[in-house]
Amino acid sequence: MDVQKTVSQLFADMDGAIGEIYFVACGGSLVDMYVSDYVVKSESKTLVSGLYTANEFVHVPPAKLGCHSVVVLCSHSGSTAETVEAARVAHRAGARTIGLTYNRKADLLEESDYSFIYEWGDEKRVHGNPMALMLDLTVLIIDQAEGWPQLPAFRRGMDIIDDVVGKAEDAVVPRAKAFAERYRDENMFYVLASGASYGHAYGFAICSLMEMQWLDAAPIHSGEFFHGPFEVTDRDTPFILVMGLGRTRELDERALRFLNEYAHKVEVVDAKELGLDVIDDSVSEFFNPILFYSVLSKYRQALSTARNHGLDVRRYMGKVEY
Amino acid sequence: MDVQKTVSQLFADMDGAIGEIYFVACGGSLVDMYVSDYVVKSESKTLVSGLYTANEFVHVPPAKLGCHSVVVLCSHSGSTAETVEAARVAHRAGARTIGLTYNRKADLLEESDYSFIYEWGDEKRVHGNPMALMLDLTVLIIDQAEGWPQLPAFRRGMDIIDDVVGKAEDAVVPRAKAFAERYRDENMFYVLASGASYGHAYGFAICSLMEMQWLDAAPIHSGEFFHGPFEVTDRDTPFILVMGLGRTRELDERALRFLNEYAHKVEVVDAKELGLDVIDDSVSEFFNPILFYSVLSKYRQALSTARNHGLDVRRYMGKVEY
Repeated sequence: MDVQKTVSQLFADMDGAIGEIYFVACGGSLVDMYVSDYVVKSESKTLVSGLYTANEFVHVPPAKLGCHSVVVLCSHSGSTAETVEAARVAHRAGARTIGLTYNRKADLLEESDYSFIYEWGDEKRVHGNPMALMLDLTVLIIDQAEGWPQLPAFRRGMDIIDDVVGKAEDAVVPRAKAFAERYRDENMFYVLASGASYGHAYGFAICSLMEMQWLDAAPIHSGEFFHGPFEVTDRDTPFILVMGLGRTRELDERALRFLNEYAHKVEVVDAKELGLDVIDDSVSEFFNPILFYSVLSKYRQALSTARNHGLDVRRYMGKVEY
Repeated sequence: MDVQKTVSQLFADMDGAIGEIYFVACGGSLVDMYVSDYVVKSESKTLVSGLYTANEFVHVPPAKLGCHSVVVLCSHSGSTAETVEAARVAHRAGARTIGLTYNRKADLLEESDYSFIYEWGDEKRVHGNPMALMLDLTVLIIDQAEGWPQLPAFRRGMDIIDDVVGKAEDAVVPRAKAFAERYRDENMFYVLASGASYGHAYGFAICSLMEMQWLDAAPIHSGEFFHGPFEVTDRDTPFILVMGLGRTRELDERALRFLNEYAHKVEVVDAKELGLDVIDDSVSEFFNPILFYSVLSKYRQALSTARNHGLDVRRYMGKVEY
């Protein structure tokens, strides 16, 4: 479905009275929503936003959830039980639901007032992926609700992001291979990021490393690093610093200075150095996660190859009862 | 300062028009705010809430921050640079600030319209600790804004929480010792929780284990566990499951069933079994983190003793430039 058309219909349907947007999913799909929640919080003066893992939303829905709420739900298979149930909870409260899935026969679609069947697998065309779709939807909702001056710059960014991501992917392939060769025998990684990018520190840790490689991992917010976590820093522990462009870059730079001094195993994945700065400064930070998703996919692929541990291998997910 | 009096003054000062409450701090102080943010989101139909690590708030303040906002800031030393700066950001935007610190000469106090000098060190008297103070403040703000039917039950809970915590502490001392003896040579711990308790999964990981013991650790939300992280589960990896009372207990119980089946090293810290259920069901979940802070402090003390690694030993914090 067309994003602009959906937003127009949504506003008509709700008499223009959107109060809240909740982003609800699990695991990797929740990661994809992080930037949208961040955009509402940092850009909108009128809309309330919330980011929920689906089962928490089911059991403790926000008190504000009601007929002025829009609930965005995403499930790759479309049958994640908690996410489908969250859509039911949203409906019972009178909210409108927007469902995103890869599966045309998804259960989620039955509980979605609006829906998007997204593309998958071609990381060079990011427009159709769920993260970019939800981000697009979110900025259009903000713009229609109150006007968003950065929208033209954002649109220009969307026009060139495929090209930026393609070049960045090519640039990191050899680095990812070197990273994987160097760290193939490590058991534990810390992943640092801040701002719009933090979702991908979390996502790389829980999906790419824990789920797909059975490796221990933990995300750390670059701003929180100095208030506890940094005491684990030593010359043996690997850190992946995901440095974004934009307003919180200073936080990542501070982490980098510290790591360069006290750590020995540090991999820096820097959006600026990877060419994201061709996008206007007023909106480039919102594109960080789009770039990082594609670029970090090269890292996990290289790690999978070096460790001879396929990215699709699972021991519990979809295999046992839980 | 008296909490009820502060809330009354705040409402008078702001002509009753409080729109947003932001909770801003770093590390352990941020952990202490988690439950207050959770309460606003789950209980208030009128107030917007946000939880921010201070340096992110400084660089990307919420778009809604303004003259209808209350910003609660907490710093034990009162001189955490990012937190003091966040108070300045709040003031420049026209917001009111409430500062909490242990230090009567704190820089934070100069930027606090209202302030609390809290008590510290006596974990058996939790009323005066910053977490309980902020929670008390938050529910009184909700009650004054819109009425909170659970307030009488919450007050009764506060009246008996010291007694509950005291008994729970006594109960866990031998368990904590056994835990520490068993796991003294482990290097990595996962800490699971959900709902109001999640802040303490994060806090136990980053403060107690990483900062105070230089051990690798990661918090996992019990609801997210099944969407990636659980693939690391094996018989060698230790998990600490912090099981709360209340609406998300089902999430923790699901994690427990899985861990009992597939993990071997599982420590369960259960608020119900530790007697928190004497507090009314309608509010008991909000007391989970108060209980867990005190109880988990016994665990970290036991680990410190067993590992012969003092809780106050730091290699970077306050020792080097960063």
